[in-house]
Amino acid sequence: MDDPQTHSTVSILHNAVIVTMDPDSRVFLNGAIVIEQDSITAVGQSSAILRHFSAPAHRVFDLNGQIVLPGFINTHVHTSQQLARGIADDVDLMTWLHDRIWPYESNMTEEDSYISTLLCGIELIHSGVTCFAEAGGQHVSGMARAVELLGLRACLAESIMDSGDGLPTTWANRSTDDCIESQKELYKKHHNTGDGRIRVWLGIRQIMNATDGLLLATRDIAKELKTGIHMHVAEIAYENQFVTDTRKVDHGTVTHLEQIEFLQKNLLAAHTVWVNASEIDCLSRAEVKVSHCPAAAMRMLGFAPIREMIDAGICVSLGTDGAPSNNRMSIVDEMYLASLINKGREVYTNGNTDPTVLPSETVLKMATINGAKSVLWDNEIGSLEIGKKADLVVINPSSWTMIPLHDCISSLVYSMRTENTVSVMCNGKWIMQDNKILNVDEENVISMAKQASAEILKRAGINIPSRMNFV
Amino acid sequence: MDDPQTHSTVSILHNAVIVTMDPDSRVFLNGAIVIEQDSITAVGQSSAILRHFSAPAHRVFDLNGQIVLPGFINTHVHTSQQLARGIADDVDLMTWLHDRIWPYESNMTEEDSYISTLLCGIELIHSGVTCFAEAGGQHVSGMARAVELLGLRACLAESIMDSGDGLPTTWANRSTDDCIESQKELYKKHHNTGDGRIRVWLGIRQIMNATDGLLLATRDIAKELKTGIHMHVAEIAYENQFVTDTRKVDHGTVTHLEQIEFLQKNLLAAHTVWVNASEIDCLSRAEVKVSHCPAAAMRMLGFAPIREMIDAGICVSLGTDGAPSNNRMSIVDEMYLASLINKGREVYTNGNTDPTVLPSETVLKMATINGAKSVLWDNEIGSLEIGKKADLVVINPSSWTMIPLHDCISSLVYSMRTENTVSVMCNGKWIMQDNKILNVDEENVISMAKQASAEILKRAGINIPSRMNFV
Repeated sequence: MDDPQTHSTVSILHNAVIVTMDPDSRVFLNGAIVIEQDSITAVGQSSAILRHFSAPAHRVFDLNGQIVLPGFINTHVHTSQQLARGIADDVDLMTWLHDRIWPYESNMTEEDSYISTLLCGIELIHSGVTCFAEAGGQHVSGMARAVELLGLRACLAESIMDSGDGLPTTWANRSTDDCIESQKELYKKHHNTGDGRIRVWLGIRQIMNATDGLLLATRDIAKELKTGIHMHVAEIAYENQFVTDTRKVDHGTVTHLEQIEFLQKNLLAAHTVWVNASEIDCLSRAEVKVSHCPAAAMRMLGFAPIREMIDAGICVSLGTDGAPSNNRMSIVDEMYLASLINKGREVYTNGNTDPTVLPSETVLKMATINGAKSVLWDNEIGSLEIGKKADLVVINPSSWTMIPLHDCISSLVYSMRTENTVSVMCNGKWIMQDNKILNVDEENVISMAKQASAEILKRAGINIPSRMNFV
Repeated sequence: MDDPQTHSTVSILHNAVIVTMDPDSRVFLNGAIVIEQDSITAVGQSSAILRHFSAPAHRVFDLNGQIVLPGFINTHVHTSQQLARGIADDVDLMTWLHDRIWPYESNMTEEDSYISTLLCGIELIHSGVTCFAEAGGQHVSGMARAVELLGLRACLAESIMDSGDGLPTTWANRSTDDCIESQKELYKKHHNTGDGRIRVWLGIRQIMNATDGLLLATRDIAKELKTGIHMHVAEIAYENQFVTDTRKVDHGTVTHLEQIEFLQKNLLAAHTVWVNASEIDCLSRAEVKVSHCPAAAMRMLGFAPIREMIDAGICVSLGTDGAPSNNRMSIVDEMYLASLINKGREVYTNGNTDPTVLPSETVLKMATINGAKSVLWDNEIGSLEIGKKADLVVINPSSWTMIPLHDCISSLVYSMRTENTVSVMCNGKWIMQDNKILNVDEENVISMAKQASAEILKRAGINIPSRMNFV
């Protein structure tokens, strides 16, 4: 028998709660969606959709009252670091970076990046992600191979550094020109591949590893190529001190980036923890997008002023960061955390937590439509609307994890767990159905990942101390 | 065929990573446990155990390299509130308490408490919990029926209040004597039932709802009955202010409790967020136990000084709190949160987060042996040692959620998710195997819970505003 998915051109998903995340925040309690090829051609009440579209439909899926959301967008992921989960737990930041992460990353092969991205992609899909922004890692060609196979959508970027102390020898002598040329080539080779699911962005690892020359060249090339820039911004207090000392500005990274006219609306700034009120204004005026990574922030960086940024009109989205900083890679967990920590953080600004801060509908926006805006793709993804790509996730709320469902919307943030995500569609094709990843063999990837990661650690000479008395 | 579990007296679990949590922090990499009736009779290397115990064993379970831990102990749970999940998200504290939780709880029947505890118990078991401490809720007899059926271990307590403003009319006129007599009766009826799995504790809801007479009578009766006291302590800044104003002490709840000689080693103090250095000393000297509930604290209360309490030698354990405060009821999530938020909290005391604070081995202690000490049951549970009760959890680490497993111990805190908990044994009997709850029908409980919770909300007149545009 022919594969029905390949030949189908019109599918209907019906009998579902459709949370559209459209500008009117419409939710269809008994709703349906029509998908033609890779796009949404109708959204509405089940009865009306079935009446009008049953005839031309090739596949009709009864979702039995499950919830449909736009696919989640994870705006800060280190796919290359997935094989390094657990190599740097409970260690200080310098040990984390110099003794664990840089030796690990600098010892990766292209095949390692491929395997790492496959493993990461499996975790992203299980947590309902259909699109992610790579934070800048090793071997973009390996990432692109994996993303193409998995069926995900992604904005890929290379890890770019042209300066800084303590770098592994293989990274230490890269010139600014090398950095730019390498990315132009990656753009030429991979941009708009995978049926248009893959885009190539420019990367800046962080300001302590970037000359002003690199920053400005990156800004100009991004404009020429009409693409985005992904950069870690104001991650730790020391970074601001470093910038204040070396760049002679009065506060830190954001102030310096503003002064050299680097802040633009195509910049995706990750973390952005250590910013003051005037820097928040700068980010807002320039329409810079911010990726908030709650778990990594709590563990390693500090509490970003998310409420203040949202109040200032900044587009804030959600990211998981990389596996060694988190170590769960689930945007479902990050939604839960984002709500909790930003309520809690108020205790330090006002003297009490404020349970009304960052309500669940705001958190859902961060994970969907704001994610789409952050990756400069909101004309095609981020909400369930006619004309947009069919990127969506099906949630089963009828389990002990979410019952009772007194507040359907808040339950998606507070009660939903990764395992409630049962099926995921990207670009009109199912990439997970009934919790089964369709395009790769999970067991096979897990087996490759175990072997590859052990070999990288061996090559890199990384030893992890024992925490208990193993006998 | 006879049920083998009923008649077996000796079982062996082998080919497992046994994390004993014993005083020497021993981990058997290829270990085994022997269980006779309800108790552990041997722990050691698989090969040696199989050699000595295969002959008398009735059941031998090959765990295929999975991880075995002592069952987790959740030291602060409101089982009565499980049916109220989602009724009070994103609302301020007074709305939470007066308009949602009190009307809900005061409209519960004994059968509602039974159903709520069943639903809660299912979630607890799925997250690896074998023992919990009830924070003080409605209808202890309903809780006890559910706990007996589920096969869990628990310290139950009634919600006790003899004073305070804004109480529902059915609660408002309870005298101190009523409060004490009711608990003595519950003790007589339910203490040491369910094959010794059920104990009855005394409850104090919180100081704003307790006269000093009630506090002191509770202290004395607890001594007489040789049982514990469960109380919410120093939850919000306003509580300390209230105590300072009404009880004429210079700081807050803990200071007052110290002055009236209420602090004893059988007190389990929940949350304990708003305590100063001298109060931490008081708690430490009196050997009071503290239940840290990270999610609820972040959302509603504030960040407890956990590092400082541990440094002062206080026994700190973990709790989920109730479903309307969290809303996930997983001690697995609380372990992850405890580590993250206490690293993050350092930013407010030292200027930087400290990723070395509350390392994973400490968090595992909080969820196991410290939990056992907190519920005054560490002579029988909390670690896998000869002579202790066979309360344990089997973790499958071979999935995309935990791979690669470079640091087995830290992965249990940072990467493990609730779904990695596959089997749970309590008092020598499996209560979950391969993710299936054995003693109750999950679907049936979910169906009863949906109906009962809708009816309580109707009786209580609770309406939850809509967050989006439902069409």
